[in-house]
Amino acid sequence: MSAPAAVFSALRWEGDRLALLDQTRLPHTELWLGCVRAADTAAAIRRLAVRGAPNIGIAAAYGVALEVTAAPNGWEPGVAALRAARPTAVNLAWAVDHVAAATRAAQAAAGPGAGPAAARDAAEALHAAEDAASERVAAAGAALLAELGARRVLTHCNTGVLACAAGGSALGCAITHVRATPGATVLACETRPLLQGARLTAWELDRAAVPHALMADGAAAGLIARGEIDAVIVGCDRVAANGDVANKVGTYAHALAAQAAGIPFLVAGPVSSIDPALTRGGDIEIEERDADELRRAPGGELLTLASTPVRNPAFDVTPAGLVTALVTERGVARPVNRASVAALL
Amino acid sequence: MSAPAAVFSALRWEGDRLALLDQTRLPHTELWLGCVRAADTAAAIRRLAVRGAPNIGIAAAYGVALEVTAAPNGWEPGVAALRAARPTAVNLAWAVDHVAAATRAAQAAAGPGAGPAAARDAAEALHAAEDAASERVAAAGAALLAELGARRVLTHCNTGVLACAAGGSALGCAITHVRATPGATVLACETRPLLQGARLTAWELDRAAVPHALMADGAAAGLIARGEIDAVIVGCDRVAANGDVANKVGTYAHALAAQAAGIPFLVAGPVSSIDPALTRGGDIEIEERDADELRRAPGGELLTLASTPVRNPAFDVTPAGLVTALVTERGVARPVNRASVAALL
Repeated sequence: MSAPAAVFSALRWEGDRLALLDQTRLPHTELWLGCVRAADTAAAIRRLAVRGAPNIGIAAAYGVALEVTAAPNGWEPGVAALRAARPTAVNLAWAVDHVAAATRAAQAAAGPGAGPAAARDAAEALHAAEDAASERVAAAGAALLAELGARRVLTHCNTGVLACAAGGSALGCAITHVRATPGATVLACETRPLLQGARLTAWELDRAAVPHALMADGAAAGLIARGEIDAVIVGCDRVAANGDVANKVGTYAHALAAQAAGIPFLVAGPVSSIDPALTRGGDIEIEERDADELRRAPGGELLTLASTPVRNPAFDVTPAGLVTALVTERGVARPVNRASVAALL
Repeated sequence: MSAPAAVFSALRWEGDRLALLDQTRLPHTELWLGCVRAADTAAAIRRLAVRGAPNIGIAAAYGVALEVTAAPNGWEPGVAALRAARPTAVNLAWAVDHVAAATRAAQAAAGPGAGPAAARDAAEALHAAEDAASERVAAAGAALLAELGARRVLTHCNTGVLACAAGGSALGCAITHVRATPGATVLACETRPLLQGARLTAWELDRAAVPHALMADGAAAGLIARGEIDAVIVGCDRVAANGDVANKVGTYAHALAAQAAGIPFLVAGPVSSIDPALTRGGDIEIEERDADELRRAPGGELLTLASTPVRNPAFDVTPAGLVTALVTERGVARPVNRASVAALL
């Protein structure tokens, strides 16, 4: 249970530069990008070379440190541009503001020369805190999977170290558990349309040397009904105050199948995913994404007519009543309801 | 309601040759193959240029007629090879045996010269019977959808004229209904891994000029929960005596979502899909197909690691209790149970 959740990280701080594993090239090419200024980091975030709220925040924190080091007297414009790289990513603005505030405080107290060290310290501390939180999620989820006696664990999308610091969330829980459980295995849904399961999760499981298999999203319910899955664990994009969970499209069908078969359906993620201002999941506006995600294969090949009309919701909502437990770095809500979610905050 | 279910057929008998729309080239190329002997027809069946049990049977019937016409005194070897083109397709052997028996009877009564006309007549009669049955399914399903007030109809896989004579089964019902209902629309799931929804159903809906949209299989449950779908209608590969339905993988999750939202879940298909010897759906052995269907895009591009282990069940089973009605050419079973299914036979 004390084994690390994964064998590597998708971000590496090298003191004077930030190395990022380019996720747009996976699974076929493991290319590391070197960032030395805020602008490099912003570009990597913008083109999704780095993804997942925690990883975007960590990369942005180091991006600020790089900019302050390169331009101790004029880092503000570059940092402002970095903060705007992806307008909807909450962790990005939060991380940039955190490191920028520490830098300003140090420079106000001891002059511009104090900026670089303060910025690097703040970024490293933020990274360490995210790693620790993510490892706590992975450990808590693995403990719960062990308690539930889950041997065959199904997951959806990618919620491992490629998205979430050094532990991962749902995939981190599954990997940590399966490594400690002889004969256990992870079943990964390919996750249409963007195939994060096929491109990223399968690669991460291979790299972690964990027994696994990939399958179509639509195959999950049938395998669950046939008794071939012991538990489902997924991440969360947003959790409402009542425990309803918005997550990658396809999640809700897995929850229905788990309920019908009487197996546990677990959700794992950081407390920062909980939005206490959101009364219930039905209030979440679901982003509709580009039609070409359905129309074309990743290489550009047309899979249907170029003119075929498309519905492409990015997320769906799983009601709290279908969620057996919500696993966070501050503990586990079980059952999941307004009171148990509030207790985590 | 009396409009034809579709504007064309994927098979055309031209008196001295059989024209088949090559489904392996859809949706980008509409190539018609001309068959003049049993061997051509067998090759088209073998490489899936023609697919769907009814269409395979019709093509095979004409294949026998072509062979008897070309070789009235020696058609048996070519016909035997045609019968073996796909060993598991029940309609293939049934159609070949039917036309061969009619030919043998005519030749025994009136000499070898009577064979060609008898074979052609038998094939044309079989084709007409399949067209009529398929149109009855489409009309009955459309009437039921109208009765249920369904405006937005979700379907899975391809069950239109590309598979089922001139009417189609589930897709035939949906198209017939939507054409008669202003503002109505068909939502087609792409149907991973082979993408019959994206490649064939979207093409057929476009060709039929029916309002439609394509979506990921995993998006269906969320749209159903949000009240954006009024009814689901799917085909069936096999129906057990108790009404359990084996169909293309992904079907069962749609049925669970329909039940949770309280919308009708309909199954349409010919009575020949009912297997009275099969007590319940759980007894059906689920075919596991090739891993490369998941690993590669249709053009061959790798979507994951070449070595990624895969689970690829071709079908799943929906329990009878989740099926609102079973629509056949002999009428509608509603509710679906052992007694109502037996009454159709």
